[in-house]
Amino acid sequence: MPIFGAPWRGEQLSLLAKQLHSRQSSECFQQLLEDAKGELQDICQKEGLDQEDIFERTRNLNLLEQDFRRQKSLDPNLVSRIALAKAEGYNLWQLAKSKNDFQLFSPALCNLISLRQEQASQLPESGSCWETLAQPFEPDITISRLEELFAPLRKALPELLDEVRTSQKISTLNWDLDEPSQKFLCDELLKQWGRDEKITTVARSPHPFSITLGPQDFRLTTRFVPGQPFSALLATAHEWGHSLYEQGLPSQTHQWFAWPLGQATSMGVHESQSLFWENRIARSKAFSDRFWPYFAKAGAPVESGIDLWRAMNPLMPGLNRVEADELTYGMHILVRTDLEIALLEKGLEVNALPEEWNKSYRNLLGVAPRNDVEGCLQDVHWSEGQFGYFPSYLLGHLISAQISEAMNSSLKNSCFQEDDAISAAISSGQESIMLAWLRKEVHHYGRKVNGEELVEKVTGVPLSSSAFLDYLREKVGILIDAS
Amino acid sequence: MPIFGAPWRGEQLSLLAKQLHSRQSSECFQQLLEDAKGELQDICQKEGLDQEDIFERTRNLNLLEQDFRRQKSLDPNLVSRIALAKAEGYNLWQLAKSKNDFQLFSPALCNLISLRQEQASQLPESGSCWETLAQPFEPDITISRLEELFAPLRKALPELLDEVRTSQKISTLNWDLDEPSQKFLCDELLKQWGRDEKITTVARSPHPFSITLGPQDFRLTTRFVPGQPFSALLATAHEWGHSLYEQGLPSQTHQWFAWPLGQATSMGVHESQSLFWENRIARSKAFSDRFWPYFAKAGAPVESGIDLWRAMNPLMPGLNRVEADELTYGMHILVRTDLEIALLEKGLEVNALPEEWNKSYRNLLGVAPRNDVEGCLQDVHWSEGQFGYFPSYLLGHLISAQISEAMNSSLKNSCFQEDDAISAAISSGQESIMLAWLRKEVHHYGRKVNGEELVEKVTGVPLSSSAFLDYLREKVGILIDAS
Repeated sequence: MPIFGAPWRGEQLSLLAKQLHSRQSSECFQQLLEDAKGELQDICQKEGLDQEDIFERTRNLNLLEQDFRRQKSLDPNLVSRIALAKAEGYNLWQLAKSKNDFQLFSPALCNLISLRQEQASQLPESGSCWETLAQPFEPDITISRLEELFAPLRKALPELLDEVRTSQKISTLNWDLDEPSQKFLCDELLKQWGRDEKITTVARSPHPFSITLGPQDFRLTTRFVPGQPFSALLATAHEWGHSLYEQGLPSQTHQWFAWPLGQATSMGVHESQSLFWENRIARSKAFSDRFWPYFAKAGAPVESGIDLWRAMNPLMPGLNRVEADELTYGMHILVRTDLEIALLEKGLEVNALPEEWNKSYRNLLGVAPRNDVEGCLQDVHWSEGQFGYFPSYLLGHLISAQISEAMNSSLKNSCFQEDDAISAAISSGQESIMLAWLRKEVHHYGRKVNGEELVEKVTGVPLSSSAFLDYLREKVGILIDAS
Repeated sequence: MPIFGAPWRGEQLSLLAKQLHSRQSSECFQQLLEDAKGELQDICQKEGLDQEDIFERTRNLNLLEQDFRRQKSLDPNLVSRIALAKAEGYNLWQLAKSKNDFQLFSPALCNLISLRQEQASQLPESGSCWETLAQPFEPDITISRLEELFAPLRKALPELLDEVRTSQKISTLNWDLDEPSQKFLCDELLKQWGRDEKITTVARSPHPFSITLGPQDFRLTTRFVPGQPFSALLATAHEWGHSLYEQGLPSQTHQWFAWPLGQATSMGVHESQSLFWENRIARSKAFSDRFWPYFAKAGAPVESGIDLWRAMNPLMPGLNRVEADELTYGMHILVRTDLEIALLEKGLEVNALPEEWNKSYRNLLGVAPRNDVEGCLQDVHWSEGQFGYFPSYLLGHLISAQISEAMNSSLKNSCFQEDDAISAAISSGQESIMLAWLRKEVHHYGRKVNGEELVEKVTGVPLSSSAFLDYLREKVGILIDAS
């Protein structure tokens, strides 16, 4: 879109938001829900009940009703004002970023915060403002539960980073790959991982994403970044993981695609699936051992799996979330989570945001942004009034690690002799076995259970940070020894 | 879109068509039209009328009412059946093309023809079936008027082609340019032609197009075809011409964008604007004389304007419409126009289409397709049930030539000394003078006047093929002499 196209787009988005809200809170929709409930009661009174079917229908209706109640409680004017403010915020954020001038964006951010606070107060939720706004991404999350999950990370991640720093074995990458070579690697990756071209397309975009546009229509994108030869490959692996989750969601009929039950249960679970394929597989030693010849063929100066593995796992504190490695990624999230809760609930002034951001980075990661483009202007989320999403990224790391442990136990007892069954699957190019396990144990639930219930169902224990920290400690140890 | 995404897309398109039709034929819309007519009557009864304003409002309302009447007369079920048939037709056409098997597509084409015949019979129009379906592209066109305009071409084009053939000076291109070089030329072209990046973006797509998504949001695409070093540049020039027309449409307020008066008056006029920039300018001798050093810089083996000009004007009969030159292009259109009128009105059987197509090509162009992919499966239009569009391409050639003559006379008397004022403008890089003229004389009318009225207003005489034939004869003559 050319930049002068923005105001008209804003008007359109605002109109669409208003129309969508009007439909989703209409009497007609309410009547359809009532009718469906009546129908369900009739079914329940018949003999020979299929309990699973009853449960699914009930859950589906409850989720639809929950959304209806939320929509109904919102003032239509607020809905269209938020849509307009999002479009304006996004445009001003782009401008502020291009000119490195936070002041150009701060009034729009103030406006978005106050509109979203108003929205939270209108919604019939028991949680705090931030908790209410986080519901669409993490249903049932609370700040205290989040703090419980993240507290061990606040302590352990800086310690692990210190270990890496002390080992003084940080190496910087001194080679690159051109776009055709990177594309060759991406194509090879998805070929080996069983991509079906009839239902998935791959394209390029400024920011990688995965999207599902129909029951049999899965699309993903990647991007090529000069100086970062792994960026496209890892983004492809990440988006492929998102897409596999959506490909595995329940779809008894093709209409399920549009129903609550046919959707992802939380963004944390969604991220766990993308991170599994990106980090647990593509950044693993076993994968490097198997895949390095393709890098060599593409012209990369690697002569062994260990060369490639070390290059793909730098473990260096940086300023940028998207480019962060597994060790430092979580710290970026801790900064943002604290700041957005402070902005929404603790009266942190928008004008004080840049300074608070920089202070947090110095304290936690020991690095300081030179300007706001490297600092608090880097992410898009707040510019569109999206608050409450960031923790999902870190929850995804925790969930991925905990599910991986369960998967490993399960595959060790069934398909592989080795203790490290996941590595064995990767080494032998049998990722399809892991995918089959994920489909059977994780994907097919959709929204039948929420994120934390799902994790407990699959792993037998409540979600915690321990599997992730165990995994990280082991990986960091081997990387230090190997360097 | 992955191919398995097609059925869901079909359902969505069908639903959207139904909803749009329901809105455009609703009582609510009718009431809005009645209110607007009342408001207009009130205005007319006041003193100090602005005649131009009254005319514009009246015309705008009449066009809205005309569309309302058309929509109102259509059976909603037919509307959604057509939308579904279009989506199916397009998918089956793609399949048939990929397998070179017309039989895979022919049942869908039969279905589309009968649905469109049904639609024409429901519409309250006085014209024949084909004429009725052509209205959205060429308001007020009739088959007899078309025949009057095209008859001289049926005679003259084959004669001109014979002259070229007899001269035996056809040369084939033996060089190519890589994508970055072609992109450099496209960027340079639009830079010189004054593209404003704030309101226009340029991208790539499988088929070049131009689209306007908002009052200040103009987008165009081009494509790069191996073995055809001019394809991207000429497509860019062509789409730029379409976009310039839309950029010049009336827009007193930004809401005009969505109103009849703010829209193009006919596809013939639209094509005349794209063809002016593609053929009259980019394929001209004057342009080659000025632009060849950029080709040389891009690595093309040209050492003079005449080298480039001859390469850009092959004048060879081929099988493909999109790749045809100025001389043979019209003949492709004559074939399609005859055939679609025969399919809709004269009982030509769909199964007989391939043979009829091939016969027409042999007779008119002296070449024969080796298969249906080269033949009747080449164009997308019929696969989406679009009948009546093809003549607009050729009308565009006629209109462009006639308007160019008027422009030349006008600029000769005002801005330039030379008899060939257009060439003088091109030689001196003053395309902006021609654009200013087009904006003032052609673009700003929108749908205030229809296509033929516009041509007569601008040129002083009714539309005919003579300016186009004069232009072609002169160009062919010089090209033969120069080779």
